[in-house]
Amino acid sequence: MSEEQKIRIGITQGDINGIGYEVILKTFAEPEILELCTPIIYGSPKLAAYHRKALELPTQYNAIENADDAENEKLNIINCNDDEVHIDLGHATKEGGKAAYEALEKAISDYKEGKIDVIVTAPINKNNIQGEGFNFPGHTEYLQERMGGEERSLMILCSGDLRFALATSHIPLRDVAAAITPELLEEKLTLFNKSLKEDFNIDAPKIAVLALNPHAGDNGIIGTEEQEIIKPTIEKMSKEGILCYGPFPADGFMGSANYTRFDGILAMYHDQGLAPLKALGMEDGVNFTAGLSVVRTSPAHGVAYDIAGKGCADENSFRQAIYAAIDIYRNRKNNEYAHRNPLRKLYFEKRDDSNRLNLQQPDNE
Amino acid sequence: MSEEQKIRIGITQGDINGIGYEVILKTFAEPEILELCTPIIYGSPKLAAYHRKALELPTQYNAIENADDAENEKLNIINCNDDEVHIDLGHATKEGGKAAYEALEKAISDYKEGKIDVIVTAPINKNNIQGEGFNFPGHTEYLQERMGGEERSLMILCSGDLRFALATSHIPLRDVAAAITPELLEEKLTLFNKSLKEDFNIDAPKIAVLALNPHAGDNGIIGTEEQEIIKPTIEKMSKEGILCYGPFPADGFMGSANYTRFDGILAMYHDQGLAPLKALGMEDGVNFTAGLSVVRTSPAHGVAYDIAGKGCADENSFRQAIYAAIDIYRNRKNNEYAHRNPLRKLYFEKRDDSNRLNLQQPDNE
Repeated sequence: MSEEQKIRIGITQGDINGIGYEVILKTFAEPEILELCTPIIYGSPKLAAYHRKALELPTQYNAIENADDAENEKLNIINCNDDEVHIDLGHATKEGGKAAYEALEKAISDYKEGKIDVIVTAPINKNNIQGEGFNFPGHTEYLQERMGGEERSLMILCSGDLRFALATSHIPLRDVAAAITPELLEEKLTLFNKSLKEDFNIDAPKIAVLALNPHAGDNGIIGTEEQEIIKPTIEKMSKEGILCYGPFPADGFMGSANYTRFDGILAMYHDQGLAPLKALGMEDGVNFTAGLSVVRTSPAHGVAYDIAGKGCADENSFRQAIYAAIDIYRNRKNNEYAHRNPLRKLYFEKRDDSNRLNLQQPDNE
Repeated sequence: MSEEQKIRIGITQGDINGIGYEVILKTFAEPEILELCTPIIYGSPKLAAYHRKALELPTQYNAIENADDAENEKLNIINCNDDEVHIDLGHATKEGGKAAYEALEKAISDYKEGKIDVIVTAPINKNNIQGEGFNFPGHTEYLQERMGGEERSLMILCSGDLRFALATSHIPLRDVAAAITPELLEEKLTLFNKSLKEDFNIDAPKIAVLALNPHAGDNGIIGTEEQEIIKPTIEKMSKEGILCYGPFPADGFMGSANYTRFDGILAMYHDQGLAPLKALGMEDGVNFTAGLSVVRTSPAHGVAYDIAGKGCADENSFRQAIYAAIDIYRNRKNNEYAHRNPLRKLYFEKRDDSNRLNLQQPDNE
């Protein structure tokens, strides 16, 4: 990454009847943020104009045809919606779902062609976007499929120094317990550890694992998954070098402010992680999809139909999503740079007791 | 209740190797609280002496044989443990479980004989207390059975003006979804509404109901219980006069500080309610078992073996449990007093449109 070339952020418009355009336009109303990145909105200049006028926002933008034409110091908008899309503020419409989907498709196609560096997604409505091309419970699953389907992903919600990852995310509560398997937890812990190191630049991240059952099962009286699945997996992954601890009962863990002592917290399911995190203050919460080759962040809020068009949406979470995408992209690049010429390995791993030079090791290992 | 007779609070010692005695003795170290109530500890003067000495606490107490001998302005202790009980601070022992159980049995027996007015329980260890007489996941289920088994109970955790009730409590997460039935929700909403009125003295309590699934099921995409069970039950109970609303997605509900707009919040399961509540500050959290004829409260923390005997336990939650028990007992008495001679009902219910005098109504209705 040359210092000259600014990070190019692809921003998908999300649901056009929610607060997506409002938080985007408010974020880029301050020109300072354009010194950090070159934003490209995947949406429609017409739709942006509608929201800009309705909300009396001062933000200027630059309509372009192709991401290659994006100009620095400007908020660029690519038209992804050919038809005359009708805006119906605060309502879920088929047109709105289609417009959101088209923006996503175009952004991913441009990403694959190297035209943008990272993707920040404005919120979608998970109901009206469903269709032939989109049959997923959310952005995360959709992106995972579009990036080839081979990559595993991990949803991380960050707010300041708090990072909550979810072992399971958008599945019914009824299915959570059965989904918690040793394989899943190993995969998620590995992804989380890697992401904390490479994306968040934490050398030796400490991860807390929450329990599945109340009181962590109280030694098997209320649930056995802790003893049979979670604890053995934590022990196994600890031996493999991941600094993970637990399982902690979720309520006591949140109550004692234990969460401040860890770099990451792995919750077993959606509400277990997100309800306490949001209770602690969601104003600047950011959603990050770890594990994918593309860096993708989003604000922690939804389409917020109830306040759409009223001008009272807080853009801070979206602004933090932009910052987080930039930080993570830079951390990844720095990490790659630092590791591009590794020294030949001459030691056994430190945690191995036989910590001595192995000069017999072949050169090409 | 005469003004002369102070409220007699039965306090069970809980697990003798945890922080139970520490928070009890710290709470009653200040004599002011003795102006409000007459405390009777169900435990052992010897055990109290051990903790008092180990922690160098100034609290004075009065050993008695029978609750009838309890003196005002003193911290009375009844001996419930005949044997020489051995203390092993910070460890779960069989003896400790037995001592906790004996104290509970004696307190309930005295309550039934009218010797005490309310019960405040110090935390037990749910593992070592299990035995012939105690085969329950917690205090709540045990009390419910001892009070005759006919009464239905509801666990409410209070912290300031926040009151979280649990539709299901100490069951494995695997069993939660199946346990959420219309019958259960109707029962819990009815109990919650009654308790908010009679125990917390709120005239027309507004209750928020949380969803079971992430995003409240997103219109059935991730779970159908909201559409099939929770929403219809809320509508039914609303028609019956309970001011209940929802179902709200748990994370968004906590994030938007919506919880401050309701008198009570019904969570579907243990961690959904307690993790966010404790994240918001558990220092003064109190656990109240609504629905039973006996008023029973407890601190929101557990035995805390890790800090037992170190003198650093915060007694505020226990102190608030004492205050809450007094408040709830008084509210109930005042409510009974206010309703002992009801006027003959001359109106239709207000929510009925035909809001007019019905003079045809028979006198004895």
